[in-house]
Amino acid sequence: MTGILSADGTKRLVLVSGRAHPELAAAVADELGTELLPTSAYDFANGEIYVRFGESVRGADVYVLQSHTAPINQWIMEQLIMVDALKRASAKSITVVMPFYGYARQDKKHKGREPISARLLADMFEVAGADRMMSVDLHTAQLQGFFNGPVDHLWAMPLLTEYVKSRVDLSNVTVVSPDAGRIKVAEKWAAKLGGHPLAFVHKTRDINQPNQAVANRVVGDVSGRTCVLVDDLIDTGGTIAEAVRVCLESGAREVIVAATHGVLSEPAATRLQECGASEVIVTDTLPISAEKRFEKLTVLSIAPLIARAIEEVFADGSVTSLFEGNS
Amino acid sequence: MTGILSADGTKRLVLVSGRAHPELAAAVADELGTELLPTSAYDFANGEIYVRFGESVRGADVYVLQSHTAPINQWIMEQLIMVDALKRASAKSITVVMPFYGYARQDKKHKGREPISARLLADMFEVAGADRMMSVDLHTAQLQGFFNGPVDHLWAMPLLTEYVKSRVDLSNVTVVSPDAGRIKVAEKWAAKLGGHPLAFVHKTRDINQPNQAVANRVVGDVSGRTCVLVDDLIDTGGTIAEAVRVCLESGAREVIVAATHGVLSEPAATRLQECGASEVIVTDTLPISAEKRFEKLTVLSIAPLIARAIEEVFADGSVTSLFEGNS
Amino acid sequence: MTGILSADGTKRLVLVSGRAHPELAAAVADELGTELLPTSAYDFANGEIYVRFGESVRGADVYVLQSHTAPINQWIMEQLIMVDALKRASAKSITVVMPFYGYARQDKKHKGREPISARLLADMFEVAGADRMMSVDLHTAQLQGFFNGPVDHLWAMPLLTEYVKSRVDLSNVTVVSPDAGRIKVAEKWAAKLGGHPLAFVHKTRDINQPNQAVANRVVGDVSGRTCVLVDDLIDTGGTIAEAVRVCLESGAREVIVAATHGVLSEPAATRLQECGASEVIVTDTLPISAEKRFEKLTVLSIAPLIARAIEEVFADGSVTSLFEGNS
Amino acid sequence: MTGILSADGTKRLVLVSGRAHPELAAAVADELGTELLPTSAYDFANGEIYVRFGESVRGADVYVLQSHTAPINQWIMEQLIMVDALKRASAKSITVVMPFYGYARQDKKHKGREPISARLLADMFEVAGADRMMSVDLHTAQLQGFFNGPVDHLWAMPLLTEYVKSRVDLSNVTVVSPDAGRIKVAEKWAAKLGGHPLAFVHKTRDINQPNQAVANRVVGDVSGRTCVLVDDLIDTGGTIAEAVRVCLESGAREVIVAATHGVLSEPAATRLQECGASEVIVTDTLPISAEKRFEKLTVLSIAPLIARAIEEVFADGSVTSLFEGNS
Amino acid sequence: MTGILSADGTKRLVLVSGRAHPELAAAVADELGTELLPTSAYDFANGEIYVRFGESVRGADVYVLQSHTAPINQWIMEQLIMVDALKRASAKSITVVMPFYGYARQDKKHKGREPISARLLADMFEVAGADRMMSVDLHTAQLQGFFNGPVDHLWAMPLLTEYVKSRVDLSNVTVVSPDAGRIKVAEKWAAKLGGHPLAFVHKTRDINQPNQAVANRVVGDVSGRTCVLVDDLIDTGGTIAEAVRVCLESGAREVIVAATHGVLSEPAATRLQECGASEVIVTDTLPISAEKRFEKLTVLSIAPLIARAIEEVFADGSVTSLFEGNS
Amino acid sequence: MTGILSADGTKRLVLVSGRAHPELAAAVADELGTELLPTSAYDFANGEIYVRFGESVRGADVYVLQSHTAPINQWIMEQLIMVDALKRASAKSITVVMPFYGYARQDKKHKGREPISARLLADMFEVAGADRMMSVDLHTAQLQGFFNGPVDHLWAMPLLTEYVKSRVDLSNVTVVSPDAGRIKVAEKWAAKLGGHPLAFVHKTRDINQPNQAVANRVVGDVSGRTCVLVDDLIDTGGTIAEAVRVCLESGAREVIVAATHGVLSEPAATRLQECGASEVIVTDTLPISAEKRFEKLTVLSIAPLIARAIEEVFADGSVTSLFEGNS
Repeated sequence: MTGILSADGTKRLVLVSGRAHPELAAAVADELGTELLPTSAYDFANGEIYVRFGESVRGADVYVLQSHTAPINQWIMEQLIMVDALKRASAKSITVVMPFYGYARQDKKHKGREPISARLLADMFEVAGADRMMSVDLHTAQLQGFFNGPVDHLWAMPLLTEYVKSRVDLSNVTVVSPDAGRIKVAEKWAAKLGGHPLAFVHKTRDINQPNQAVANRVVGDVSGRTCVLVDDLIDTGGTIAEAVRVCLESGAREVIVAATHGVLSEPAATRLQECGASEVIVTDTLPISAEKRFEKLTVLSIAPLIARAIEEVFADGSVTSLFEGNS
Repeated sequence: MTGILSADGTKRLVLVSGRAHPELAAAVADELGTELLPTSAYDFANGEIYVRFGESVRGADVYVLQSHTAPINQWIMEQLIMVDALKRASAKSITVVMPFYGYARQDKKHKGREPISARLLADMFEVAGADRMMSVDLHTAQLQGFFNGPVDHLWAMPLLTEYVKSRVDLSNVTVVSPDAGRIKVAEKWAAKLGGHPLAFVHKTRDINQPNQAVANRVVGDVSGRTCVLVDDLIDTGGTIAEAVRVCLESGAREVIVAATHGVLSEPAATRLQECGASEVIVTDTLPISAEKRFEKLTVLSIAPLIARAIEEVFADGSVTSLFEGNS
Repeated sequence: MTGILSADGTKRLVLVSGRAHPELAAAVADELGTELLPTSAYDFANGEIYVRFGESVRGADVYVLQSHTAPINQWIMEQLIMVDALKRASAKSITVVMPFYGYARQDKKHKGREPISARLLADMFEVAGADRMMSVDLHTAQLQGFFNGPVDHLWAMPLLTEYVKSRVDLSNVTVVSPDAGRIKVAEKWAAKLGGHPLAFVHKTRDINQPNQAVANRVVGDVSGRTCVLVDDLIDTGGTIAEAVRVCLESGAREVIVAATHGVLSEPAATRLQECGASEVIVTDTLPISAEKRFEKLTVLSIAPLIARAIEEVFADGSVTSLFEGNS
Repeated sequence: MTGILSADGTKRLVLVSGRAHPELAAAVADELGTELLPTSAYDFANGEIYVRFGESVRGADVYVLQSHTAPINQWIMEQLIMVDALKRASAKSITVVMPFYGYARQDKKHKGREPISARLLADMFEVAGADRMMSVDLHTAQLQGFFNGPVDHLWAMPLLTEYVKSRVDLSNVTVVSPDAGRIKVAEKWAAKLGGHPLAFVHKTRDINQPNQAVANRVVGDVSGRTCVLVDDLIDTGGTIAEAVRVCLESGAREVIVAATHGVLSEPAATRLQECGASEVIVTDTLPISAEKRFEKLTVLSIAPLIARAIEEVFADGSVTSLFEGNS
Repeated sequence: MTGILSADGTKRLVLVSGRAHPELAAAVADELGTELLPTSAYDFANGEIYVRFGESVRGADVYVLQSHTAPINQWIMEQLIMVDALKRASAKSITVVMPFYGYARQDKKHKGREPISARLLADMFEVAGADRMMSVDLHTAQLQGFFNGPVDHLWAMPLLTEYVKSRVDLSNVTVVSPDAGRIKVAEKWAAKLGGHPLAFVHKTRDINQPNQAVANRVVGDVSGRTCVLVDDLIDTGGTIAEAVRVCLESGAREVIVAATHGVLSEPAATRLQECGASEVIVTDTLPISAEKRFEKLTVLSIAPLIARAIEEVFADGSVTSLFEGNS
Repeated sequence: MTGILSADGTKRLVLVSGRAHPELAAAVADELGTELLPTSAYDFANGEIYVRFGESVRGADVYVLQSHTAPINQWIMEQLIMVDALKRASAKSITVVMPFYGYARQDKKHKGREPISARLLADMFEVAGADRMMSVDLHTAQLQGFFNGPVDHLWAMPLLTEYVKSRVDLSNVTVVSPDAGRIKVAEKWAAKLGGHPLAFVHKTRDINQPNQAVANRVVGDVSGRTCVLVDDLIDTGGTIAEAVRVCLESGAREVIVAATHGVLSEPAATRLQECGASEVIVTDTLPISAEKRFEKLTVLSIAPLIARAIEEVFADGSVTSLFEGNS
């Protein structure tokens, strides 16, 4: 029977995956030392998804992994359908593992008559039968409160900072946020790297050149420094590429970009390759297909972090150590 | 302000549509004598859907129309997101209009460890904020019980039978079901057309030729008769085309095919065009794109039926007349 | 302490029964090798039911068995009250075992302004505290989707087909459905018995005798054959008895009737005894009192199937084998 | 269209009744100046209830009246099924009118492993679709808190006290409770009648005759007085008859019994007729069949109170005046 | 790791306490032979409460103890927040232990437009994540039905009666209720002490002195007897002190007061000290601060009862023995 | 009858207030041209809150205003109890108006084993019976997603910016955020005032003076400029006062402080008076008692904004204009 039994034999851990990111699922299974549950999943001619599990999950603690990548609505629906099937198949508990939380940016009404799709997602997973959620570097930490149950909020920053530390001269680093709204993340990075200065890019007038038009400018000093430009995700790369350019124009010696989620929608690859950054670092919470890759891109594996968190949750251990005080 | 006010001015009907089937939405609005609510709906680069309504819906009775066609998961998600946005924008009531109920065929577990996706859909619409559902010719009537609220179950058969009556010699008709599970629908057709004989296609042995292998055969008499082959939907057309062939081999003079929902997934157009049927009749509950169309296909408009039902619901009239005793 | 401990001593199975069908409860307990939980259940003078369990059920996995027989509303209410009492007495899980699902035929609105009582039942058991349901041969498989949790749908057909195989010459069998709506069941029987021909009874005109009035006729060939007339339940026996007569009139050599649920309301016994069938076979999912019995009736015990399913569910084994691919 | 329109024509009041107490339903309809909604309700052969309304209730404020009399479980189930049908038929609001709240005495666990059936009832009506409840003289006022919505708690006491005032010499009255638990009701009576003394019957020793055995005795003075023995309901009449006897033995000049709900289960009629009370007064919240009646019984009509409350609720008036400060 | 493991090591009991009554929490932990879970709880400058647990509670059965004493809204909110934190920290089960159930006296609407705050409390604890409740001597037993789950209703009477038995001459005791509404409690006391007479205090006229004004009087005989005046709680002591005076005026030899919950709001201490009672006995379900204490007050410890109940619940034992047939 | 009728007489607006901020309630009532609903609200001796409304609210759209000021838990509980009472008194809709959303800062888990109290609040109001929420300048906009219904998120910025515009030379303004996490608010201010530069205060090293210790510094240029230091709330004033000092030390010509919510816990008054700011501007979403006031404090009235929003919501108008594109 696929899965891992607890030491006293009273619990069984089962790992299930949707079709969005098989490499990550395989890597997590590998880290856990188990196999993925045999699963049939395919599309009917009209696009409806069919799912069936190949083995019993009665009484098991099941972790359902899906990466919310394009075609994102299909993969979210597949994960919802899997949760429904697990509930009806008598799984003891169901944990939704979404390394990247789809629709996370729709977490509030910017204007009237908009949805709050991120809350809708949490509610749909709850109604489908999910008991718990696990995700990495939520776009805003408030998303934890959208789900009416435990949310294990993992933190990829140690992975990224360790890597960055091995690549740059730390004595000369400024951490830069690509816009005003993400400075909180930059602040954590600055603290983690060792108390470095902060800067951010902002559309404003130059106060010393009053007649000049509005433009993106760096607030804070980056001249002659190694800029580590950080964000939680990179989508089309427009904001990031612009921020790299502005930092370099403001005299930065070098700009390195680091983000947890490599959404990398068209034309991110081209933009980032050409923007002047010396390296762009992401994790594989989302699949990075060949056409999304480019020379300066570095992809770190998130599988060990997810596997460790699943192990701890299954063993009723504390996951707090995996959050480094962050959640 | 877009919409229709009730006679006493205390209620406002608003029609909203997703992007799946704009022709149907326009036709329904037209029948109602109103405009669709101005709506922004588009996809972000990574495929997440964005929706915003262009006018206030506070206090309005809103009908959200979406056709569950391919890419079906995207359009279902869009409709869910629209419902969420309407709820948060203080609509007084929200009616989900799904002329074809997606995932309706996944209404039970055929085997262990399968989902019941049709129930999941109902639950997701409920949690998003839907008060009521409206649909046409549900795959099984039990789907009404999946939603915890009123379901207006419209009946396209009068539309189809009226058309068929104008095309065939009724004195010589046999109504045929393409398989054993759909005879109930055929029985209603037979009654509606005027008490005609029934037949169905079944995979069996010929009891008079005991050594012959198993094959599809007609149970019931079709020899020399005009067969009206009926079903609720035609997907890839395989079962239907085979049934047409079997009827003709069994001596049918002519076969006409009629179904409510023209899913018409590849290779339905080719199969149906070539199967020997003299005409294939569907409604436009789903969009019939150019590549789905073929010479022998007739498409009837479902818009008048939906518009009439919306009017009746809005006016607190009885919708039962639109069901002809069927629901 | 009454009940069965799991091998590792961490779980306790407890079987509780209402008053509707004590023989079945005793037989299931016997098959499980345990006793029923001592229970006080009686009616107050005005008909209100009182229930109290004689032993603690804290932390136990409890299976509450009740047969939905007449007076059906009383027994359903008793089972609901038992679930409430178990919830408040801290049972770890509560499985409602209803061998025959009461109100199952009210699973959709046939006309406007009707209830969907089968869904109401599922909701009431859920609100009372049920975690899971177990039933035998649901009237329609869609009922599984009415309950928001696991439903173990057991399949009595192997029991019935094994018995039928021992009674008839299989080479000459036609499986007959008493009406168009139940052919799906007949089709499963035909497959299970070995690919036999199908027929069904339908109210229609004889196409070769155009002036003859409408009457029940067999669609399919039964002349000279042994007909196995199958259904999920027999209530007053009217439809079945008529179908037997029609088969015999159409030249059937012999007709055997088989159904899972012997509701057998008045005047079923007389009708079935006199209809010409050589044998009528049911199981004891419902109690068959003396006045419901008749000479040609055979009653098979459902207790082993239910006991095996309870054992498997308790042991977190797969119940799928008990469904034979049916659910 | 059956029912009553509000003055401004924007609301419609509809009265529906189950089959338990047609006389009361007719009387309430009469008081309201309307007809009952045409309704089909009957039992199938196996006891399952079927209900269908004869007219549309879309958008109506519906009041569903059922008397929880024997066979009580059947009538409760019928009312639940009616609520389900009304919900699915798009009633705007559904008020459950239960003049006597069935299972009201099962409002707590007296011992471990008992149900709290009165809460279960409230939950079942809520899940079926009820928005509001209306009842008369709840066994305990805490029952209001079992329903998650408005409960209109009507008070029959004015009806009863007015009648009693017309029958007895008020200057010489003692109000007596038949046991310790119901003194609260007696206290309200005493206040309502004008500040009269209280007494109650209790199983105790006579403190002045220390060697005498324990027996029912009156605590408080009744000698030479007219006792008004009050309770919320009379079921089998045992406690009441015994209390009458004890009062008379303690020197009471006369005993009159008054209670709201005449459950009057066997052998109440005989007991009450013979117990020595000069008159027994109840209302018709429950039907009083011929065999429950006896010479000394007086039955007052509750219909005017219920009709007035429905009118007030429908008109958004204050119902508090109907509670006389009692709820 | 703080807490108690079950014998087979598969379960962990954790005791958590709010800040309202640390002495009781310490005593319960002591009785259980464990420590309280290390917990940070403090108020922000604007009064918002902050809570964080110092150790993991994943997979633990957690008992959250809080005494609903003044400032009562703060302590209730703290307990609610603790439940939320436990839910989000993946506790396996959460039991709310409220020795005194705050707002228990608001368990019904006395008049129109009042809340039922006791039900609101139950709902809020449920929505926060509580699985079960434990309380001592509920104001009315119906409160059990306000919570949708198991309620362990402990009974302090044995503790109090044992103590009383050691203090008075049982042969001469009358049990007295301070008003009509609490006689039920007095009746249980009378039975428990051995079948003693009952009396209660009531505002009434003396029927033998017709011209005298209305006043509080004893109904029942207390002359020359030792009165045990009992109630579930003593708040400001007004009713109790008045009842003591009336008993003494009616010739009682001595009055002892006993109640489970010593709310003792100002000016209870003065009133009770001066009212003439020889002793006032309460338990420490609520903290009895120095200013609430007075010479004649005796405080019994409730910790052993609570600890025993927690042990039994954790071990899936029967708690019924702790209720002595009372719940 | 207190309240406002809609133009067509079919709706009634009722304004209710708790005891936390009577001045604001009176001002809002005044703006609306109505009276507050007569309400009894007081504390029992042990601190439990009692509430009763003096008039019927049946069928009314009720707005319950409470200011979440200290003692904050008491006032939140009072508002919850009011909602419960309104639900049970048959209000048609209940809108919770909380100008300042208590516990809004506890909107995520900063560390493991913390609560998300802001979500708990939303859930408690929902379970109590609230249909909708209205609040001003939420601490984070994601709080909208914590409530499962419409949230009217009002925006006080126009009020504040209009005032600021009247006080400073706009040509020389820099908008400053007191820390990294609040820059988003500052960015909106900058845009609103006319595209001004931004700066923020951050604990960091001076990159040009490498040996200097970590300290708070301004990131961005403020030298010689008028700083408008903005935040959503001022609690104890520590962060703000420090930010003012840092701006002045960095050469700012003047610093004006503006925030929506004046929590002003001790020792805010002293700190702000002495910090060097020329003016501190807040609104009266929270009561500003005499001891919280100081010479440089300006308090603007929020009542007109709330009154206008209530009017629009009641009239089913668009509230979006009151959000200025912000929600």
